[in-house]
Amino acid sequence: MPQFLLPEPMRAALNLAKAAGDAGEVPVGAVVVKDGVIIAEGHNRPRESRDPTAHAEIVAIRAAAAKLGNERLDGCDLYVTLEPCAMCAGAIAHARIARLYYGADDPKGGAVVHGPRVLSQPTIHHRPDIYDGIGAGEAADLLRTFFAARR
Amino acid sequence: MPQFLLPEPMRAALNLAKAAGDAGEVPVGAVVVKDGVIIAEGHNRPRESRDPTAHAEIVAIRAAAAKLGNERLDGCDLYVTLEPCAMCAGAIAHARIARLYYGADDPKGGAVVHGPRVLSQPTIHHRPDIYDGIGAGEAADLLRTFFAARR
Repeated sequence: MPQFLLPEPMRAALNLAKAAGDAGEVPVGAVVVKDGVIIAEGHNRPRESRDPTAHAEIVAIRAAAAKLGNERLDGCDLYVTLEPCAMCAGAIAHARIARLYYGADDPKGGAVVHGPRVLSQPTIHHRPDIYDGIGAGEAADLLRTFFAARR
Repeated sequence: MPQFLLPEPMRAALNLAKAAGDAGEVPVGAVVVKDGVIIAEGHNRPRESRDPTAHAEIVAIRAAAAKLGNERLDGCDLYVTLEPCAMCAGAIAHARIARLYYGADDPKGGAVVHGPRVLSQPTIHHRPDIYDGIGAGEAADLLRTFFAARR
């Protein structure tokens, strides 16, 4: 099989997703990139953190804002292995993320191209550029394997 | 003028909103109630915290989950002075909040009865009972005064 190359930040997000799954959390990972450098990362960990808001995107965004000392991540990009939910899509808008790259679609919980389509609402105060499908196969495989092992 | 009485948790949320405004943050407050007792509170503080996710509801939900040692706030109610945004509505669903009481409507940023209507989507995994308008006048006055002073 050919080796498909992925942008390095999505590779890092997939590695974080795998780490989440190994820790018993739903395998989703995210990184924040500024000027081509990963400045913050996160994986899904609501159980470990006992925090219902601890999705990969929220963890990474909070870490990036703390690192930059600014609630606005102007010019930063977010890479996440799964289509963000409503909570995370809202956080992405609040953080003023410039570009959102996500892997697998999430017809059930996703809120970018599914359900409430948070970032496409006329009332949204900031809309990042959105790129989907990058690393989608690998991201979906991680989730499928995780849930199959728990059935 | 007659004195209109408010449920005590909404009175507490309004006091938190006022404290936020006094600190230069958009005046929104929230409390989490379990078995009739306030177990956690929060006010809007993204600037102070340098955290774009630090809305009143998120701060209160995270504090409640930390206090209970559980990512799910089963049987807990959330009182917030303003209609939650998409991020906060998503967090309310993730936290399994039983009843949501909010004050003023937010046609611009609200995501309960406006915009993406996150909690009304067929894909939503948990839908709290929702009560609106409680303390709405006072909540809206705080916001109006805050923004008027900044124009």
